[in-house]
Amino acid sequence: MAKMKAAIFVEPGRIVLDKKPVPEIGPLDALVRITTTTICGTDVHILKGEYPVAKGLTIGHEPVGIIEKLGSAVEGYREGQRVIAGAITPSGHSHACLCGMHSQDGAGTPHGWKAMGGWRFGNTIDGCQAEYVRVPDAMVNLAPVPDGLSDEQVLMCPDIMSTGFSGAESGRIRIGDMVAVFAQGPIGLCATAGAKLSGATKVIGVDFLSDRLAVASRMGADHVVDASRVDPVEEIMRITGGRGVDVAIEALGRQETFEACLRVLRPGGTLSSLGVYSGDLTIPLGAFAAGLGDHKIITSLCPGGKERMRRLMAVIESGRVDLKPMVTHRFRLDEIEAAYDLFAHQRDGVLKVAITP
Amino acid sequence: MAKMKAAIFVEPGRIVLDKKPVPEIGPLDALVRITTTTICGTDVHILKGEYPVAKGLTIGHEPVGIIEKLGSAVEGYREGQRVIAGAITPSGHSHACLCGMHSQDGAGTPHGWKAMGGWRFGNTIDGCQAEYVRVPDAMVNLAPVPDGLSDEQVLMCPDIMSTGFSGAESGRIRIGDMVAVFAQGPIGLCATAGAKLSGATKVIGVDFLSDRLAVASRMGADHVVDASRVDPVEEIMRITGGRGVDVAIEALGRQETFEACLRVLRPGGTLSSLGVYSGDLTIPLGAFAAGLGDHKIITSLCPGGKERMRRLMAVIESGRVDLKPMVTHRFRLDEIEAAYDLFAHQRDGVLKVAITP
Amino acid sequence: MAKMKAAIFVEPGRIVLDKKPVPEIGPLDALVRITTTTICGTDVHILKGEYPVAKGLTIGHEPVGIIEKLGSAVEGYREGQRVIAGAITPSGHSHACLCGMHSQDGAGTPHGWKAMGGWRFGNTIDGCQAEYVRVPDAMVNLAPVPDGLSDEQVLMCPDIMSTGFSGAESGRIRIGDMVAVFAQGPIGLCATAGAKLSGATKVIGVDFLSDRLAVASRMGADHVVDASRVDPVEEIMRITGGRGVDVAIEALGRQETFEACLRVLRPGGTLSSLGVYSGDLTIPLGAFAAGLGDHKIITSLCPGGKERMRRLMAVIESGRVDLKPMVTHRFRLDEIEAAYDLFAHQRDGVLKVAITP
Amino acid sequence: MAKMKAAIFVEPGRIVLDKKPVPEIGPLDALVRITTTTICGTDVHILKGEYPVAKGLTIGHEPVGIIEKLGSAVEGYREGQRVIAGAITPSGHSHACLCGMHSQDGAGTPHGWKAMGGWRFGNTIDGCQAEYVRVPDAMVNLAPVPDGLSDEQVLMCPDIMSTGFSGAESGRIRIGDMVAVFAQGPIGLCATAGAKLSGATKVIGVDFLSDRLAVASRMGADHVVDASRVDPVEEIMRITGGRGVDVAIEALGRQETFEACLRVLRPGGTLSSLGVYSGDLTIPLGAFAAGLGDHKIITSLCPGGKERMRRLMAVIESGRVDLKPMVTHRFRLDEIEAAYDLFAHQRDGVLKVAITP
Repeated sequence: MAKMKAAIFVEPGRIVLDKKPVPEIGPLDALVRITTTTICGTDVHILKGEYPVAKGLTIGHEPVGIIEKLGSAVEGYREGQRVIAGAITPSGHSHACLCGMHSQDGAGTPHGWKAMGGWRFGNTIDGCQAEYVRVPDAMVNLAPVPDGLSDEQVLMCPDIMSTGFSGAESGRIRIGDMVAVFAQGPIGLCATAGAKLSGATKVIGVDFLSDRLAVASRMGADHVVDASRVDPVEEIMRITGGRGVDVAIEALGRQETFEACLRVLRPGGTLSSLGVYSGDLTIPLGAFAAGLGDHKIITSLCPGGKERMRRLMAVIESGRVDLKPMVTHRFRLDEIEAAYDLFAHQRDGVLKVAITP
Repeated sequence: MAKMKAAIFVEPGRIVLDKKPVPEIGPLDALVRITTTTICGTDVHILKGEYPVAKGLTIGHEPVGIIEKLGSAVEGYREGQRVIAGAITPSGHSHACLCGMHSQDGAGTPHGWKAMGGWRFGNTIDGCQAEYVRVPDAMVNLAPVPDGLSDEQVLMCPDIMSTGFSGAESGRIRIGDMVAVFAQGPIGLCATAGAKLSGATKVIGVDFLSDRLAVASRMGADHVVDASRVDPVEEIMRITGGRGVDVAIEALGRQETFEACLRVLRPGGTLSSLGVYSGDLTIPLGAFAAGLGDHKIITSLCPGGKERMRRLMAVIESGRVDLKPMVTHRFRLDEIEAAYDLFAHQRDGVLKVAITP
Repeated sequence: MAKMKAAIFVEPGRIVLDKKPVPEIGPLDALVRITTTTICGTDVHILKGEYPVAKGLTIGHEPVGIIEKLGSAVEGYREGQRVIAGAITPSGHSHACLCGMHSQDGAGTPHGWKAMGGWRFGNTIDGCQAEYVRVPDAMVNLAPVPDGLSDEQVLMCPDIMSTGFSGAESGRIRIGDMVAVFAQGPIGLCATAGAKLSGATKVIGVDFLSDRLAVASRMGADHVVDASRVDPVEEIMRITGGRGVDVAIEALGRQETFEACLRVLRPGGTLSSLGVYSGDLTIPLGAFAAGLGDHKIITSLCPGGKERMRRLMAVIESGRVDLKPMVTHRFRLDEIEAAYDLFAHQRDGVLKVAITP
Repeated sequence: MAKMKAAIFVEPGRIVLDKKPVPEIGPLDALVRITTTTICGTDVHILKGEYPVAKGLTIGHEPVGIIEKLGSAVEGYREGQRVIAGAITPSGHSHACLCGMHSQDGAGTPHGWKAMGGWRFGNTIDGCQAEYVRVPDAMVNLAPVPDGLSDEQVLMCPDIMSTGFSGAESGRIRIGDMVAVFAQGPIGLCATAGAKLSGATKVIGVDFLSDRLAVASRMGADHVVDASRVDPVEEIMRITGGRGVDVAIEALGRQETFEACLRVLRPGGTLSSLGVYSGDLTIPLGAFAAGLGDHKIITSLCPGGKERMRRLMAVIESGRVDLKPMVTHRFRLDEIEAAYDLFAHQRDGVLKVAITP
């Protein structure tokens, strides 16, 4: 049985590169040889033991690669084809999928719904920080990469771009909207780009790191607010003439940004939440108009599936958005432990790392 | 100057019937002689000093009456016509109104938005627990009562029915949905009726009073859950086969029901919130899937305006819903202090009282 | 190889009962033993040669039956289980499916879209007017029948009810809407029921057969208009006080009803079209306000998939709608040629026939 | 009584500059002194007698100007303020307005709906090709021009930009959509800009004039198709790999472009129609999939009201779109007859003319 290198969760605090067998595939699967992948903030939560996964699991959910082998029932692809798959790999057949809620895929449950059930890579099945990955339900999930796009150009599609853009989409941004995006890490930057791409005409990026704010401006922010120097709520109310924004996007996962989003919303506005929270949240009575402000709070988990990937790659291909500035560091798979160390400590201005087996 | 009787807020704890001048009207207003009105839970909050209004204000926001006089610029109505107006009386011309968010009407503000700004009767202008009321922006707000409908039949339209139904509407209930409604007071009962009317096929009403649950069954609940005897979250999960509901409607305004709503939602479900909360709310991390469950939390303030009133009266007229069982007690305006006493203490199985000047 | 009886298209004018092999199944399929099925208006089009299918094809797309055998990769079902499948059997994995447009499933095409591609039974693969049918993509399509529901109670779910209800759904009917439904054949009757179930409060059913109008009243029509006696456009404008309806549903597939729908719409109204047309359509300039009336014309093909079937059966189970009156005649499979003869000639007040192998 | 110059419809074939009294205003009106206006294709229809208006009417519905006088009941504005108003000036209080369908405003009708009722300027009341115009329902319609924007920068907002953008909005364009825009006149060019602004990533502009196609590229078209040289349907199917577009926008008002839109749609796609048609339209059976393709045909009349104007000016102010290239010619009001002559004959590459009193 052939062996391959993979980044494996051993125990809280330890993700190591080790050998394990190349995955076997079933009739609906594909085996993909990874050419580029990356590390996500969620992987750091796993590393720290804050999000539990099985010991021995291969981590990683952002694959770019080449089809090595196709399951016996898979049609419409060929071996050797360059593809990506989303971080979320829905089955396509659960009740949740048939309702269009692929991320909450409940394949295998009696009723067809499971919270976060579509997130399988590096969570409930082996992921893609490895030389090979098994992609389940390949016909639902494999998206061919258009000629002319490099691995790094599409590396954000499986998760960061899909998640960030969903912040703009779930907020139902309309032409002429004012939008605030709290935190300009990789997902917040994509939310900023997505807000502009959706027709918002006053996009306000908030962070407390000046280099991230500089990238935010390049990604489409019309205003940037340095939260280390001013109170962002006051500043946004000033920028909007006391009106507040139509949509506020939370891209950090903290009480303070969640709450600030509510405080900068105009009545009837939408808080579009992308963050992964680590504790209960508090909704302040006043910012919520005691429940009478016609507010909406919408959370979104990264949309997946091949059609989503196709659309995001079409955005890249069209030149509307350029996410290459987000790849700040590059490592070989052999160096992934060093990459985790850099990324987990957010050293050296890192936004995203590219990992190449 | 002619005088009339009116229920006036004097100070926390005291709403008294007293004399004050019949209102004068401007060019866009109408003077309506009240024939029937009622007391709302919000009025009790005002009585108790929990919601602040100006001393001397006439209370009440649910008018049924007859046009006594029309402002000089008002067209399309005639004196003597039977009408209702919504609890919310939007101007029709603010930016909020032009966005379709009439309840957050910001007429008079620089940017056109004001939280709860559409609620004027018995809040920022004199209300309708009186012999006469001035209806502002009459062409936006006066809705003729169809022949054949009695005052009591349309008495719920201005607030209770409009609010309760909006719980179903904001939840975007679809044919075949499972819906839970927490609390079966007047608004919850209307939410139950509205959920059924919207195509939900498993409507679950929750309360801890058995007589309210009996009314819930008559209003369309397929299941009733007595929260004084069973844990409603467990019971709803049992009824839905472990799946949870598509939409949960909060109609009480308490942390425990807000939280229970989240706990009974399927992934991707919607919490439609109608309650008026009196403190900060907590979102439990687990019930919120840490922000990754594609949940929606939507709050709604009572929709107003004459088109809304027309539609609600059409519902009554069609016989789809009968809200007369909700009028449990009747008082003359002279007896309104006794009516407040009964209603505020929820004595004698009271749901709604009819007050007739 | 085991043989079975099946209704086979031989040539225009001839559908005959003959023997053919019991279908073989692949890993994702199921073999279902039919217990009840029916004949659709579309089947009559096929019979007459108006809609072309391959010679030798088994006709029929409305199956109720029992799982005889499951493909090797199918999970979540058991042999012996009572099930239905929709007339439309999507793959779940095409780009169209991932966009939620399962009826236009383009599995197998380069781009994933194919007009009507989700309709396979009795169109591009063997159908279910037979003793057995092969159900493709079983995990997407098989919906267990709740205990307590008879075959005839769920017989309308696969097509007639799903199509008729989609007329109401695509029209985005809201509480208090006025709706006209043109033609009260099986699909129109279901559209009538669906309109009422969606909250319409003035549902107007139009037909020129008085017995169908009588059924329309039982299905929820508030008004019925006999087009053999009055001009339906004038009558609907009279009923609506000159306003017109919010939504007009076309359920016949003729120029005259399509056009009448436009003529009875209020400005900004929606024509929800269900009919299968047999020639070009004309949009009259005036009824279309020269393109300036904010009109919407929406066509819908029967929604399929197991979640759709589950929801429709939930409607039946809830008692909201009773479609049994629509089964007017019963035949054994051996008598299917006589059933076609009756149904094709619309004799004896036939609405739908039940066929039992 | 003060006199002013105005472009007046005399009879088919004759719009002349003449003197008439400066308008008087009522309590809800404003008098605006025009500083810049323009001629619309619709005005040419009026000139030719193809669209009937009353003899003696002042033409024109695209005003930029300065508030000269405010009605007694108008609040929130000051005389001397620079403003625009939309081509559509809704009342804000009809049933149509309260449903959000301001263009179909039926103020004054018994039921509150009137096809195109919101279009008053130069249609049912005096328009703005004059020194002064009376703006009805001023609080609904007057939108202050942000400092720093010139008259010409905002001149397209009242009609051309509002209409063109509504083509993208009514099509519900999503990120990654493919969109075709048929005809690249002023409205089509704005539709092209609006499609890009809404997130479409493959915008295809069609026209048969090469100079218009050149402007289309500047406005955001990714592909331009010269219909004088290739068959646009074939070319668009080639560009989209045989898939077709998600949304096709009709911006000419002809059978051939309407039909071409249907032919280039993917199944389930949306035809967003902006054109003013001058005869019945034909829907070809095949392009409509006989009614089974889940197609949508949506027509839009120019959205109006001050919030719409505010949003469109915010787009200009943000620099997202620059519509100045569309002003190709400039005239004084005294020269308006020459301007009509140039514009009506589409001479000299004219797109839009600026008229300054």
